[in-house]
Amino acid sequence: MLQGNVLIAQGGGPTAVINQSLVGAVLAARAIPGVGKVFGARHGVRGIVDEDLVDLTMETQTNLEAIARTPCSALGSTRDKPDADYCKRIFEVLKAHDVRSFFYIGGNDSSDVARIVSDDAKAEGFPLRCVHIPKTIDNDLVINDHTPGFGSAAKFVASAFAGVDHDNRALPGVYIGVVMGRHAGFLTAASAAARIEPDDGPHLIYLPERTFDADAFVADVSRIFASLGRCVVAVSEGVHDADGTPILTKLSETVEKDAHGNVQLSGTGALADLLVGEIKAKTDIKRVRGDTFGYLQRSFLGCVSETDAAEARAVGEAAVRFAHVEDRDGSVVIKRTGDYAAAIDMVDLHEIAAKTKVMDDAFITEAGNDVTGAFLSYVRPLIGGGLPAVGRVRAPAVPKRLG
Amino acid sequence: MLQGNVLIAQGGGPTAVINQSLVGAVLAARAIPGVGKVFGARHGVRGIVDEDLVDLTMETQTNLEAIARTPCSALGSTRDKPDADYCKRIFEVLKAHDVRSFFYIGGNDSSDVARIVSDDAKAEGFPLRCVHIPKTIDNDLVINDHTPGFGSAAKFVASAFAGVDHDNRALPGVYIGVVMGRHAGFLTAASAAARIEPDDGPHLIYLPERTFDADAFVADVSRIFASLGRCVVAVSEGVHDADGTPILTKLSETVEKDAHGNVQLSGTGALADLLVGEIKAKTDIKRVRGDTFGYLQRSFLGCVSETDAAEARAVGEAAVRFAHVEDRDGSVVIKRTGDYAAAIDMVDLHEIAAKTKVMDDAFITEAGNDVTGAFLSYVRPLIGGGLPAVGRVRAPAVPKRLG
Repeated sequence: MLQGNVLIAQGGGPTAVINQSLVGAVLAARAIPGVGKVFGARHGVRGIVDEDLVDLTMETQTNLEAIARTPCSALGSTRDKPDADYCKRIFEVLKAHDVRSFFYIGGNDSSDVARIVSDDAKAEGFPLRCVHIPKTIDNDLVINDHTPGFGSAAKFVASAFAGVDHDNRALPGVYIGVVMGRHAGFLTAASAAARIEPDDGPHLIYLPERTFDADAFVADVSRIFASLGRCVVAVSEGVHDADGTPILTKLSETVEKDAHGNVQLSGTGALADLLVGEIKAKTDIKRVRGDTFGYLQRSFLGCVSETDAAEARAVGEAAVRFAHVEDRDGSVVIKRTGDYAAAIDMVDLHEIAAKTKVMDDAFITEAGNDVTGAFLSYVRPLIGGGLPAVGRVRAPAVPKRLG
Repeated sequence: MLQGNVLIAQGGGPTAVINQSLVGAVLAARAIPGVGKVFGARHGVRGIVDEDLVDLTMETQTNLEAIARTPCSALGSTRDKPDADYCKRIFEVLKAHDVRSFFYIGGNDSSDVARIVSDDAKAEGFPLRCVHIPKTIDNDLVINDHTPGFGSAAKFVASAFAGVDHDNRALPGVYIGVVMGRHAGFLTAASAAARIEPDDGPHLIYLPERTFDADAFVADVSRIFASLGRCVVAVSEGVHDADGTPILTKLSETVEKDAHGNVQLSGTGALADLLVGEIKAKTDIKRVRGDTFGYLQRSFLGCVSETDAAEARAVGEAAVRFAHVEDRDGSVVIKRTGDYAAAIDMVDLHEIAAKTKVMDDAFITEAGNDVTGAFLSYVRPLIGGGLPAVGRVRAPAVPKRLG
């Protein structure tokens, strides 16, 4: 059984359940005989290179459980993308604090960091286990059936679209909601998860897995509006033209990029406003509204999928078991083993690192503007229960008495 | 006891609990001996003038309870502002269907419609009771301590800001969230309701009750950011300059107005983007993000204050009692009678119609950029319980071993 000190950090965008993984790993590590200190790094790898560590061995169980219920990375996060020197410095700090296992909760960039640090340790013959614990609302890690954080964000998006669909039925018009997702459309696709009746919205769903054609978009909206007298649309922030240029980039004068070279898509309402403008300019539909869901999708207090929370806890616990009981490096993965059942496994870090999964073709309709029943079967268990059962007026019409 | 047919309609912006009032009124009316049909008008007064009525006497109790749980006006709504001829037509339709009591669930414009129709009936000697049932997420009806729909929208806004505050603590920067509210800042002020510790955000709150000064805004944000290394800001969509001109209007090239002459403030991310631009242009803060909460605030499925839901049901029931048992016209109001207890009363329609309440000075800090403890005491019972207890890492720092 691997002994020594443990270090845990959180990277990338927060999720509603990322602290479940943190607390799962902390409690599991504290239960391993021979484990000394359980350190946490403040703000991900940035906290490691700055030696900004806290002693999680001192946290009470009560406070850890409160942290587990709290959305967003409790240790703080970072968008830093470590290069080889940065990873060397990480390794130096881990050595200096006698760390024998390093757990990094994050997306595919984080798994790449764990991989490099692991390789450095092997090259020096230093006994260090590096394990990547998955999280991302984008649901875009390969091998994983789905990732912790996605189910809760999907529940938010499904609940939001169920609500705005009722709103749009009460005050008809066109409504466009822009959802997070740069390359993978899973979260935007989840907008359909609370649909029940055939005329429930969203009626159109545009995903980054397909080319976005502005003329086809206007034609689609016009067709639905002519048929239903209203239209609710879900659009991924990452929709792009045939060249792969994001639609937002084509509009925006100043484009902000992060350390990974990614264009800033969130934190601005520009795409929704652009698409609203298209409909207003090219149709005679009067009431056209757009919202950008923004940061609420990943942080909203009190919108958690119980399946997601339980799995996020479980991957944190499993990571410690893999490292300390089985003495292995790797990236923890979730596999679907039933309808619905999931199992936790671990694969080599190289299999996950810096790779991106997108939606299966089987999840997207032929026309490319909606999801299939296969996707709904896929996503609904991840959202879990807890959505209120809704109703609509079914009373018969009253015969007219006036002209 | 007033007998005859009953007609119920819903007007203005939907809320999360407006159907509780509908169902409360329908069930109460069906229980009155001698009441014949209970009609619903599709899309508010528009459905009355079009004779687009449904027979709610035929709805099952099960379906009514499902409707009560469903956000947004189940009968449909309208933004029509009836003039004298329109009200005459309403009265003609009510007469033609032997309606003896008319219930209009809406804001102050709706109470004005009830008032005019009531006056028409009196002028003709037609025995008709007209009752206004309050609802608005803006919480801006006079005499009422608060209005049904506000508590649930306030819960959404408080939950959203609690979440984005954790997000902003994990990935520090400036975050600006724009909240609905044209003249009254109650809903924006509710952003503070989930604050617990002194450094919890939102750290700044800008309300339409005070003049918005862009330079003071930049100075405020810079000061908070210098102190905390981050800053979360809540801004009402209705913030305006010293002349009363909405900040959004000053920016927008094409301004859309509704039938009431109101400038369209929602359904666009322009104000958040404008304010983000101000901070980026006038400070050296790098990470600045803005979200516009939009329609999610009033429609999100599954974000309901239990206090709000119960009171919305109760005002619908009380309206029927006032009209049919006490044979009175009027506007139903909620009064606070304890901490926390509320009572339902009814006042003359003229006292509510077309008047707007704004926040008390006692609810706003001297500097005009935050709310007081008095406001928190006011708002918290309306939001009710149900927000998860959160935690933060309290572990001690680990002494550094490297340089």
